[in-house]
Amino acid sequence: MPAETIKLQSESQPHRLIASDRVEGTRVFNADGRKIGSIKRLMIDKATGNVAYAVLCFGGFLGVGEDYRPLPWASMKYNPAIEAYELTTLMTDEDLSKAPSFGADKEFDWGNRVREIDSYWIGF
Amino acid sequence: MPAETIKLQSESQPHRLIASDRVEGTRVFNADGRKIGSIKRLMIDKATGNVAYAVLCFGGFLGVGEDYRPLPWASMKYNPAIEAYELTTLMTDEDLSKAPSFGADKEFDWGNRVREIDSYWIGF
Repeated sequence: MPAETIKLQSESQPHRLIASDRVEGTRVFNADGRKIGSIKRLMIDKATGNVAYAVLCFGGFLGVGEDYRPLPWASMKYNPAIEAYELTTLMTDEDLSKAPSFGADKEFDWGNRVREIDSYWIGF
Repeated sequence: MPAETIKLQSESQPHRLIASDRVEGTRVFNADGRKIGSIKRLMIDKATGNVAYAVLCFGGFLGVGEDYRPLPWASMKYNPAIEAYELTTLMTDEDLSKAPSFGADKEFDWGNRVREIDSYWIGF
């Protein structure tokens, strides 16, 4: 093992933490390996401190301009091999295009739409 | 009640979510109302999806240059009245200056230092 590798390992142990500003911008792939978008931001539950949703930016992927769709955090998994998130279930383009969305310039009404998001994504 | 207020209320219900890129940059106050810094980023537990730490930027507050100190997320509370986070316990400047820190340009060794952070902050 090269000396440099040993040095790096002794300096930094693996850990379970990831920085919010590193997650923002990370690519998201479908379960079949096709890129579908990237993470714009995370939505955090103020009361519990849990990441509830990731807002995905679908830049022209579904035949639309840049639009945003919130996904439950639990519907994605980080794959260190590709440094990206993957959907835990394969979704068709139609499934993705029907997911609750909002335009880039619009305020999203989280208060009224959380139930809609949850009930949509729980089906997959 | 003005018509506009009624319209806004019917359009947007209160909700428990906050955006990660809105938390980043939010000011943090001591329990006595003095500003101590601002949130640079959040550290999220990859396995549980829980926000574990907020990395605070103390811009020259403690007689040092810009430095960063990770706080357990549970040691702060959001105060909507001032649109900022507050420490749940009053900390002296000395307490704050002794908290585990790292320089702006340095990688923080989370793997090795998480225990140090937790054991420091649990004392308050």
